[in-house]
Amino acid sequence: MVGIIMGSDSDLPIMKQAAEILTDLNIPFELTIVSAHRTPERMFEYAKTAHERGINVIIAGAGGAAHLPGMVASITPLPVIGVPIKSSNSIDGWDSILSILQMPNGIPVATVAVNAAKNAGILAARILGATNPEIQERMISYQQDLQKAVEAKIEIVKGEYPNGFDK
Amino acid sequence: MVGIIMGSDSDLPIMKQAAEILTDLNIPFELTIVSAHRTPERMFEYAKTAHERGINVIIAGAGGAAHLPGMVASITPLPVIGVPIKSSNSIDGWDSILSILQMPNGIPVATVAVNAAKNAGILAARILGATNPEIQERMISYQQDLQKAVEAKIEIVKGEYPNGFDK
Amino acid sequence: MVGIIMGSDSDLPIMKQAAEILTDLNIPFELTIVSAHRTPERMFEYAKTAHERGINVIIAGAGGAAHLPGMVASITPLPVIGVPIKSSNSIDGWDSILSILQMPNGIPVATVAVNAAKNAGILAARILGATNPEIQERMISYQQDLQKAVEAKIEIVKGEYPNGFDK
Amino acid sequence: MVGIIMGSDSDLPIMKQAAEILTDLNIPFELTIVSAHRTPERMFEYAKTAHERGINVIIAGAGGAAHLPGMVASITPLPVIGVPIKSSNSIDGWDSILSILQMPNGIPVATVAVNAAKNAGILAARILGATNPEIQERMISYQQDLQKAVEAKIEIVKGEYPNGFDK
Amino acid sequence: MVGIIMGSDSDLPIMKQAAEILTDLNIPFELTIVSAHRTPERMFEYAKTAHERGINVIIAGAGGAAHLPGMVASITPLPVIGVPIKSSNSIDGWDSILSILQMPNGIPVATVAVNAAKNAGILAARILGATNPEIQERMISYQQDLQKAVEAKIEIVKGEYPNGFDK
Amino acid sequence: MVGIIMGSDSDLPIMKQAAEILTDLNIPFELTIVSAHRTPERMFEYAKTAHERGINVIIAGAGGAAHLPGMVASITPLPVIGVPIKSSNSIDGWDSILSILQMPNGIPVATVAVNAAKNAGILAARILGATNPEIQERMISYQQDLQKAVEAKIEIVKGEYPNGFDK
Amino acid sequence: MVGIIMGSDSDLPIMKQAAEILTDLNIPFELTIVSAHRTPERMFEYAKTAHERGINVIIAGAGGAAHLPGMVASITPLPVIGVPIKSSNSIDGWDSILSILQMPNGIPVATVAVNAAKNAGILAARILGATNPEIQERMISYQQDLQKAVEAKIEIVKGEYPNGFDK
Amino acid sequence: MVGIIMGSDSDLPIMKQAAEILTDLNIPFELTIVSAHRTPERMFEYAKTAHERGINVIIAGAGGAAHLPGMVASITPLPVIGVPIKSSNSIDGWDSILSILQMPNGIPVATVAVNAAKNAGILAARILGATNPEIQERMISYQQDLQKAVEAKIEIVKGEYPNGFDK
Repeated sequence: MVGIIMGSDSDLPIMKQAAEILTDLNIPFELTIVSAHRTPERMFEYAKTAHERGINVIIAGAGGAAHLPGMVASITPLPVIGVPIKSSNSIDGWDSILSILQMPNGIPVATVAVNAAKNAGILAARILGATNPEIQERMISYQQDLQKAVEAKIEIVKGEYPNGFDK
Repeated sequence: MVGIIMGSDSDLPIMKQAAEILTDLNIPFELTIVSAHRTPERMFEYAKTAHERGINVIIAGAGGAAHLPGMVASITPLPVIGVPIKSSNSIDGWDSILSILQMPNGIPVATVAVNAAKNAGILAARILGATNPEIQERMISYQQDLQKAVEAKIEIVKGEYPNGFDK
Repeated sequence: MVGIIMGSDSDLPIMKQAAEILTDLNIPFELTIVSAHRTPERMFEYAKTAHERGINVIIAGAGGAAHLPGMVASITPLPVIGVPIKSSNSIDGWDSILSILQMPNGIPVATVAVNAAKNAGILAARILGATNPEIQERMISYQQDLQKAVEAKIEIVKGEYPNGFDK
Repeated sequence: MVGIIMGSDSDLPIMKQAAEILTDLNIPFELTIVSAHRTPERMFEYAKTAHERGINVIIAGAGGAAHLPGMVASITPLPVIGVPIKSSNSIDGWDSILSILQMPNGIPVATVAVNAAKNAGILAARILGATNPEIQERMISYQQDLQKAVEAKIEIVKGEYPNGFDK
Repeated sequence: MVGIIMGSDSDLPIMKQAAEILTDLNIPFELTIVSAHRTPERMFEYAKTAHERGINVIIAGAGGAAHLPGMVASITPLPVIGVPIKSSNSIDGWDSILSILQMPNGIPVATVAVNAAKNAGILAARILGATNPEIQERMISYQQDLQKAVEAKIEIVKGEYPNGFDK
Repeated sequence: MVGIIMGSDSDLPIMKQAAEILTDLNIPFELTIVSAHRTPERMFEYAKTAHERGINVIIAGAGGAAHLPGMVASITPLPVIGVPIKSSNSIDGWDSILSILQMPNGIPVATVAVNAAKNAGILAARILGATNPEIQERMISYQQDLQKAVEAKIEIVKGEYPNGFDK
Repeated sequence: MVGIIMGSDSDLPIMKQAAEILTDLNIPFELTIVSAHRTPERMFEYAKTAHERGINVIIAGAGGAAHLPGMVASITPLPVIGVPIKSSNSIDGWDSILSILQMPNGIPVATVAVNAAKNAGILAARILGATNPEIQERMISYQQDLQKAVEAKIEIVKGEYPNGFDK
Repeated sequence: MVGIIMGSDSDLPIMKQAAEILTDLNIPFELTIVSAHRTPERMFEYAKTAHERGINVIIAGAGGAAHLPGMVASITPLPVIGVPIKSSNSIDGWDSILSILQMPNGIPVATVAVNAAKNAGILAARILGATNPEIQERMISYQQDLQKAVEAKIEIVKGEYPNGFDK
């Protein structure tokens, strides 16, 4: 199971994209708010017990001085995926990227692109699929769908620009 | 098994740190050079077949306009960990960070800190441990070792600054 | 002939400016979607065969972790012009600039300004004109037109600020 | 009393400058290592009890994804001064600056310049002096010393450049 | 008492958030405009006399090349909190952050996040609470309120995502 | 006389602020379009003859890869003030700032803030006033007006926040 | 023929790498110093006449506020390749990158990576090969050599890490 | 006369380059240390009286949060040239550049490149030459010397690369 957490409900419009893709990929998850700065004890408890409660991967989103992913990663033995969120007073997202990415030796966070909660969900699926052939199969099929979506667009563009590459 | 790849042998002094920590954690790996730009067909073949050859997680390190992690991630269904390398003509590492991190929706790369190949190895172990209790146990024990190493340093610092926090 | 490619149809509003200026300069082109990350095999095939299909210059536009121009350049022997696109989740364009510009030794990409697909078209024309006096002539005449457009604006500004430099 | 903490003993050469200036200003302090990522429980305990153990101000130094100052500030009611440290794999210090500075509403960290542990010590003294006339007096006298040091240098420079401003 | 100053009335919409939180925390303050660049003598006089007029902490907000916090800090012995303001021609706030943060040795400014006047107010309260148990008590209670506000949001989110972490 | 030039009429809304303040300060100027990239010969001629045509100071505004101020400075012996303009495809103004500011040894450009054409006009007046007491007097009086404008705002703010600093 | 120019002899250690690779690729070139800022008339003359003197492609290297590539491109109809040089007082190369890359619509510069004069030479060869099958053939063969060099390194790495990917 | 000031004697190795070029150009100057942060009253007095003491242009160098140029400009009616200095704990010079450049409307500082004290001296000479034909003449002659120095280097480079552009 994937655990999705975020520092504030203002992160939900972004972070629910992780929930949506996991639903699409038929992978169970739970989702809640855990704030490193406003509920540090809850964060501690969450991280301490996640692997005992059946969580396999944690997705943590946060903005600004984004400490949630790194702090959770320092307490849990599970892989933690960090989603830097470009919040309202963020400096173009640089603050959340660097606060999540630049973890010291010993405690990695798997950082994805700014606001890329959807990719965090896909990465969680790939992680579960690393040792689960059935989920890995779904991932292969998801990648084929991406390709087909592009192919459909190729056809549409061909309407306006007919003499393109044809293969 | 973990597959470690890098674009050039000049990345080896950094990337071998992934191999070393995996050795310490008793997790099998293979390591080779695969260049997205100089051996694109080899890269293609590597990524296409990795999951069929028993690889569960790929660690890919690259510097500058670092396309190896993202390109491999676009071909394989496996989780790919990207290590941005601050190479000689890099712009303080920004180029490799952004080329690896800012992947489009659909194809995530699990990015770690600049030059953090060691953390890439640990993240790979956490990924394998996500569904393997024995490896997860090793990770918990690794985290306890980190803590003990700090505790030893606390004692040393106490030599010079005796009246510190004692717990 | 110029081959114009882009990673996604969302890049078309920018990339069609390359098509328009090539039309104005009377230089044949083809245009299609080729995604490095979603259709890697098509990208491979495109780059592998472009010079055999009569393409002389490739213009490739992409945003975020923009791998299309560099990957195509690593496979084709043709000159590749890269257009960094400031896409919605881009970090002010820095990610696409650096992913396209900072290519390793051996595989150059001719990078133009952010969103400057028009300039990519003009650069393609200059490249073809490098060894073709007739196209070079058109370029000289295009540059004279740029100058005339400024001169017309000088006259308009002179309405409000009459005592300017007169030459 | 001032509590000085840092994430690692590698930060000591910088952080001891806080201890030195506090010694000069005759303000008691304690100093120890507390790592947010390697000893999260110790960090928790430290922050939870500091104000009960007679600490009035906390100075916390950290590099990279620097979570120590902000996490401590989220647990203690005391003022926390954060020192961003330009560590070896830091991206020119930007990572530690932004991880410390850009705290969310509700939990401030008093951030000083990169590596400016000395200024953190002086700021701690100013904070204690805010309501303590005797310490405030020492600060006024420290500022006069700064001025005198400059005046001595003015005289030296006057040796080479005699016709300067004389006041 | 807290003295709140800002360089221009255009900073008031941000800076009044410091006044509001101080009102909430029942801490007396005064607020006025003091411009380092347009009223340098007033700034001098303000800084010179603040500690004699009963001010204990100064909060100074400024944008662009933001000299007010640092200049005031160089004249007063009081702790000065600097609020970088992202003004209209600011370069994403970088100019005000760096002009306030990077003070030389000897004259610290306690810098908070961009536009974080609210946090400046809270930091002023923590500074006063450093040696005043009653104010410190209010701060502890404010932190509990932050936590309760998050807990209320957790319940709301549970409406849409019922199977979250329950503690 | 001050010569105001800009690369394009799209810069006029910004650059006319230089004309307006010079009008206010009663200092004669001329204004026209001179494009380094679209009318290089006109630029050359302008720069070559400006000091012979009675120009004493040149104000040059440009955006993006802004070469106009530096190129003019390399040809004329006059002081050149550069105004970096944040144009539509600019990267937050960084491109124009650095293209204008970072001139090599031997050929300075007096750079002002992004979009600060008004300040360029004031700087031109200060330059003319450097050796002209009457213009210097106007500058002193302009600075007093700035101060009065702030004082008027202080009174207004006092309506809402009566207990401010009174001097 | 390729024309290689640079602003200063201090750029020669970098720029001679363009000359060396062109020598290797058997493509004629000339090389000289042309300074936009110190010899503007020479620069003008060079750019005005290059296409009449048998030059097909111009490679221009410059550091800091790097105006040479863009100014030459505004005068010549030839393709101009710009090499940003990280000179001694450069700000990590950002100044030269942005001054060369961010050209306005109408006048493109083909920008390569920082200090990448070698890639500029290869790009010039690709440009000449765009319409010259014999040179294009050399480029294909150069790319095969790149690949062989990597393959040799793969064998060496296999000494230390024998169980790699074998294809 | 030119007044050269700097915040600290550690800036002297850079700032003396302004003195040297002014000596070469035969323009009188005075040089001294004036620290905005350590001797604010001296700074005030210097700026207040400079134009009465025969100073026509002020050159002010400072590093980090560099307030000296802007503060002096806010008090004096004279043109102020700011030299951003890349001091030891500077963030690649960005802090001093932005603190000097981004002055608010009304109070310009003529900013030159990082560490470019030599250019500050030349700009001061151009400012004095704006209304003084004899100094302007010296500037023209200085520019010719720059050109001759390049021409000498052209000859040297011709030794190694004989077939260059000859004009």
